[in-house]
Amino acid sequence: MTLAAYLKDRQRQVDAELKRLLPSTKTRPGTVHEAMRYSVLAGGKRLRPILCLAACEACGGDAAARKNALTLGAAVEILHTYTLIHDDLPCMDDDDFRRGLPTCHKKFGEGMAVLAGDALLTLAFEILAGIVPPKRHPLAAFVRELAVTGGSRKLIGGQVLDLEGEGRAVTAAELRYIHESKTAALLTTAIRFGGMAANAPEKPLEALTVFGHSLGLAFQVIDDILDVTQTSEKLGKSAGKDAAVGKATYPALFGLEKSRTEAARLTRRARESLALFGEKGTRLAEIAGYLLDREY
Amino acid sequence: MTLAAYLKDRQRQVDAELKRLLPSTKTRPGTVHEAMRYSVLAGGKRLRPILCLAACEACGGDAAARKNALTLGAAVEILHTYTLIHDDLPCMDDDDFRRGLPTCHKKFGEGMAVLAGDALLTLAFEILAGIVPPKRHPLAAFVRELAVTGGSRKLIGGQVLDLEGEGRAVTAAELRYIHESKTAALLTTAIRFGGMAANAPEKPLEALTVFGHSLGLAFQVIDDILDVTQTSEKLGKSAGKDAAVGKATYPALFGLEKSRTEAARLTRRARESLALFGEKGTRLAEIAGYLLDREY
Repeated sequence: MTLAAYLKDRQRQVDAELKRLLPSTKTRPGTVHEAMRYSVLAGGKRLRPILCLAACEACGGDAAARKNALTLGAAVEILHTYTLIHDDLPCMDDDDFRRGLPTCHKKFGEGMAVLAGDALLTLAFEILAGIVPPKRHPLAAFVRELAVTGGSRKLIGGQVLDLEGEGRAVTAAELRYIHESKTAALLTTAIRFGGMAANAPEKPLEALTVFGHSLGLAFQVIDDILDVTQTSEKLGKSAGKDAAVGKATYPALFGLEKSRTEAARLTRRARESLALFGEKGTRLAEIAGYLLDREY
Repeated sequence: MTLAAYLKDRQRQVDAELKRLLPSTKTRPGTVHEAMRYSVLAGGKRLRPILCLAACEACGGDAAARKNALTLGAAVEILHTYTLIHDDLPCMDDDDFRRGLPTCHKKFGEGMAVLAGDALLTLAFEILAGIVPPKRHPLAAFVRELAVTGGSRKLIGGQVLDLEGEGRAVTAAELRYIHESKTAALLTTAIRFGGMAANAPEKPLEALTVFGHSLGLAFQVIDDILDVTQTSEKLGKSAGKDAAVGKATYPALFGLEKSRTEAARLTRRARESLALFGEKGTRLAEIAGYLLDREY
């Protein structure tokens, strides 16, 4: 299967799983379930669940493992969506549109958007409770990992620093922390969940951790570079937006050349971490290429 | 031990456990952890965790079970606190004070209050992942129950109906749903967690479920009645003023007399459900008396 066909097929699987896991709009109270489905099913590349599935395949997961990985990836995507809803609120980033549609609070009101986000976060853990854990990894490992990654020291912590950092100089260490917490951490958890679903032992899990971490950071650095170098037309969004709102970026802190060196180093590191998987790691490497091999 | 001494002692235990479980303000990013601790440690009767401990004792829980019950009760209290923080937001109930202190968003800003609430909700599940589950009740049972109770069909659902019900007529069925979802559900989960920590089988758990449900509803109906009768006495105005400002209450819908009959029925039901526990249920009965034996 070509990468394009693979991505399309897995996206379809993920969308079906999300539809299955989200409460119906007929479930009382309908409004909140409508808001939840609106935001989750608004589209998106489903990058995290697809990486979860590909990691499961790289670790030789069988049909039962892949079924678990699909559910786990969907739980991560649902948690990811709650962070988008809350980040878009007027008291946070104050965004009116996402993926070409009105944001959740624009469509359903602020109170409902807060509650829909809360409900999605809660649902992510309800979904975890429904898997049949593989031998090596008890349910506690999944719940703890999602809670720590989604919690105040990682994902939420990154958003806090982001919120507090607006309009003032952010140090290199803080920028690294924001990128690690906001992007790399949840990407890594999605990938590790795929490996854990396949009952992978410590060593491949460590390789997946390095892969996810490097991939997440590389992606973020490249995004920052492109925001500076590309025209709005090529990006499909307004270029130079980061600098305009005083947002800390890699190029702003280190200059373009150093940022390019760092992006190349992280990309190399992501690729090398897959050596352990041999042939089975090809799909993960392809996805990494798809995300990282942009001209920067 | 007198009930007063018992409540004081258990409250002290719960406060110590909460302090232990909440990240330190020195953990990065400090602000969000400060906001989390501010709201959780602002005081409060710790009703839910104390009921959890008393239910564990009623089911004959040993020292290890009581340790688990303390942790589980703290997790419920932390989840309860997140709902208070989000309910107080300007886009929800818009409250400036709680327990005589500025609400979280008044003290730390709206964005930080949203994030502190999110972080507490997430932390509640991280805490669950840390218990050693009793034989009869695997971790999945605890995670699923907290997620369902805290989710869009119960706790959040009740808040949605409350939000949507403002300024329009609420039906009797809707009012019942709001009370069940917003008050009775989490109280019941706290009590059931105590029994589950003690490895209780189906029958006592069912009794605890009826107890929690009746206790929660009775408490709410009595609160509604007191709201009306106290207001009537203070202002010298007839009951029904609450209905005029758009808040649905039992007396507004059924009248005072029917509300009193319902409160008495629910109180009796809560008491009767404890028969199964004999002597061991005394403490739970005492706490129920403390909450329900008000003049209404």
